[in-house]
Amino acid sequence: MDILIKNIKELVQVRETPVKWIAGKDMAELPTISNAFLHLKNGLIANYGSMADLPAITTQETIDATDRLVLPSFVDSHTHLVFAASREEEFVYKIKGMSYEEIAAKGGGILNSAAKLQLMSEDELFEKALVRAEEIIGFGTGAVEIKSGYGLTTKDELKMLRVAKRIGQETPLTVKTTFLGAHAVPKSYAKKSDYIDLIIKEMIPAVAEEKLAEYIDAFCEKGFFTPDETELIMEEGKKYGLKPKIHANQLSISGGVQVGVKTNAISVDHLEAMGEAEIKALQGSDTMPTLLPGAAFYLGTSFPPARDMMNAGLPLALATDYNPGSAPCGKMAFMLSLACIKMKMTPEEAINAATLNTAYAMELGQTHGSITKGKVANVFITKKIPSYAYIPYAFGADVIDQVILNGENIGKIH
Amino acid sequence: MDILIKNIKELVQVRETPVKWIAGKDMAELPTISNAFLHLKNGLIANYGSMADLPAITTQETIDATDRLVLPSFVDSHTHLVFAASREEEFVYKIKGMSYEEIAAKGGGILNSAAKLQLMSEDELFEKALVRAEEIIGFGTGAVEIKSGYGLTTKDELKMLRVAKRIGQETPLTVKTTFLGAHAVPKSYAKKSDYIDLIIKEMIPAVAEEKLAEYIDAFCEKGFFTPDETELIMEEGKKYGLKPKIHANQLSISGGVQVGVKTNAISVDHLEAMGEAEIKALQGSDTMPTLLPGAAFYLGTSFPPARDMMNAGLPLALATDYNPGSAPCGKMAFMLSLACIKMKMTPEEAINAATLNTAYAMELGQTHGSITKGKVANVFITKKIPSYAYIPYAFGADVIDQVILNGENIGKIH
Repeated sequence: MDILIKNIKELVQVRETPVKWIAGKDMAELPTISNAFLHLKNGLIANYGSMADLPAITTQETIDATDRLVLPSFVDSHTHLVFAASREEEFVYKIKGMSYEEIAAKGGGILNSAAKLQLMSEDELFEKALVRAEEIIGFGTGAVEIKSGYGLTTKDELKMLRVAKRIGQETPLTVKTTFLGAHAVPKSYAKKSDYIDLIIKEMIPAVAEEKLAEYIDAFCEKGFFTPDETELIMEEGKKYGLKPKIHANQLSISGGVQVGVKTNAISVDHLEAMGEAEIKALQGSDTMPTLLPGAAFYLGTSFPPARDMMNAGLPLALATDYNPGSAPCGKMAFMLSLACIKMKMTPEEAINAATLNTAYAMELGQTHGSITKGKVANVFITKKIPSYAYIPYAFGADVIDQVILNGENIGKIH
Repeated sequence: MDILIKNIKELVQVRETPVKWIAGKDMAELPTISNAFLHLKNGLIANYGSMADLPAITTQETIDATDRLVLPSFVDSHTHLVFAASREEEFVYKIKGMSYEEIAAKGGGILNSAAKLQLMSEDELFEKALVRAEEIIGFGTGAVEIKSGYGLTTKDELKMLRVAKRIGQETPLTVKTTFLGAHAVPKSYAKKSDYIDLIIKEMIPAVAEEKLAEYIDAFCEKGFFTPDETELIMEEGKKYGLKPKIHANQLSISGGVQVGVKTNAISVDHLEAMGEAEIKALQGSDTMPTLLPGAAFYLGTSFPPARDMMNAGLPLALATDYNPGSAPCGKMAFMLSLACIKMKMTPEEAINAATLNTAYAMELGQTHGSITKGKVANVFITKKIPSYAYIPYAFGADVIDQVILNGENIGKIH
């Protein structure tokens, strides 16, 4: 398949060569070409440039993108999109002022998501997750990280990861998976150390044996897993080739950032609660600070101090955290809106964070996240909009007109 | 045209007879029928009920809504959707910390929206507005109020209102229009009283002469129009048959609510700044308090005290305020999300506010806003979702599958 997109009003995020990531002041720069063409061939980006330089080529399909923009597909580096059921009842309980304990008693929380998932067959779980995968394709996402963590038994954690891998096989999405056995401690364990033993001695080896995950994660937070426990789990995972990615500093300054840097995590994610020490810890590291503003919006917590972090020279990534309990939204464009409206990031910074920097956080920097020759042909064509700044600005709009993944035109999918 | 929708998982907002509005504690109740049918005929709701009671009828079109919900179309009682251009540059200036004055100098604010609109032909303005009208149809809106206020000369205010009326003629939307000459004072007027004179002596008579508006509005706010000026303009409008609807208490406790009640306004809109006196003033009045949470979200102001108002027995309406400067979003479902997430309204309260109560605020209570025999056949069918609570909960989702307006199936329009 061979597609030429021509008369593109603005081709966005054009980089001649792959970059490691975009950090600090460089995040303010978003390279574009006006009145551009883009040639996709054999699933890859073959060529691009100004319309003035369009070579004489014949292609199987030509798309006229007059008045439209083309962007690289979003890369969503943090989701929990394999789950059994949405949790809108819990949402209503919270509105009515019920306590965490009352909600748990009525069937809320991670443990109850686990209870539902444990009862569901792998095929049914796949069908449920497939709907969400198709939803995010329509939202312009081309690559997605998916975590386990609602299984909490070896059998059910493996089931979740198999479903996540199958999403990568049966949809055009590029999928990487993360083993998050350390998401919560099941009630059946009187001693947390017994559950950690299960993670280390049984779950990690089984995940590695079936090659079901690239990454290992833990919810490093008061009431969940301590920095020491997190470090232990990360180090055990590394022995089996699983690289750390950590839920850090969502509800408090938990020590999660420092553990992430110490264990050389690919990313530390959330970061609603950050002090100077946490920013300092990240400086000079290879760990990507990843912001999940959908959760802050939904839970009403404070947003991460994005400007302070960029001023300190850090890169920032931006992902959805799509999950049924604290961020029931898989729409990357809305994360751009939250980044700009609530964290005062510029559209350039937000787009860099949601493409190249999330690609780094999934180790896809060589293949995804920018318009670069040889990268995977994952792009979307917008509706007629005036500029890329319109995407975060028009905070409820559907700006995406057509999606192309792996060089195949999937068309309009709403 | 004759449509039968059958096997509806839940038919929402079913009322046997039209009601004035839903107020106070009654807002918590949202009547529904599970496993229902809905029969639409000659543009009206002909019949509805439980599938067990489905009469033997033959219809031209049958839709199977298994696993789907049907709701009455949203009624959006406050928008400024006729405008010349979006203002995302100004959005970026704000992010970068520019002052209001600096932004105005660079081309931001109402006066600069007016400058652009004054230069645009009526036909071009219509084409721009039509795109937004089609957008909100896709978002499930069936009736919309549209204001002038970016003209600020007699000629251009009339042009805006003609365009708004034409949206009602050339789309399936039910449109009511509001003359908002008192949106801002043009720079060319050294004395505000001279511009108010123009509104009263020239604009109002001209609007009435051409029958271009049902309502009259003013931005009652410090730096814009005082309560006395607002009252004067409302009373002059009433002489010409224009009924008051007022921009009140957005940025401060401005006296706008009291002027609204005094002039018997259909609605007072915004209400971010409310004290006890304002709530008391509304008690016993026929004025609908209308909340516009999209503006509070975008501007970062506080949200209206919705719970206090309902506890005081007031009704509440919920609209988008769709406009390029302070609320660039026409998606009613996202207003439900903001109502529930940020104002702690329940899904029932939010849906009542966005259908029957906005219908009241546009004097469409007899014909719109609920599933009632004889009302206009304006409904939407959702995708497969578990419940109506999912609509506000899944805050970025596109939950709408098919739209039916005036009994015509418009289908899937994204």
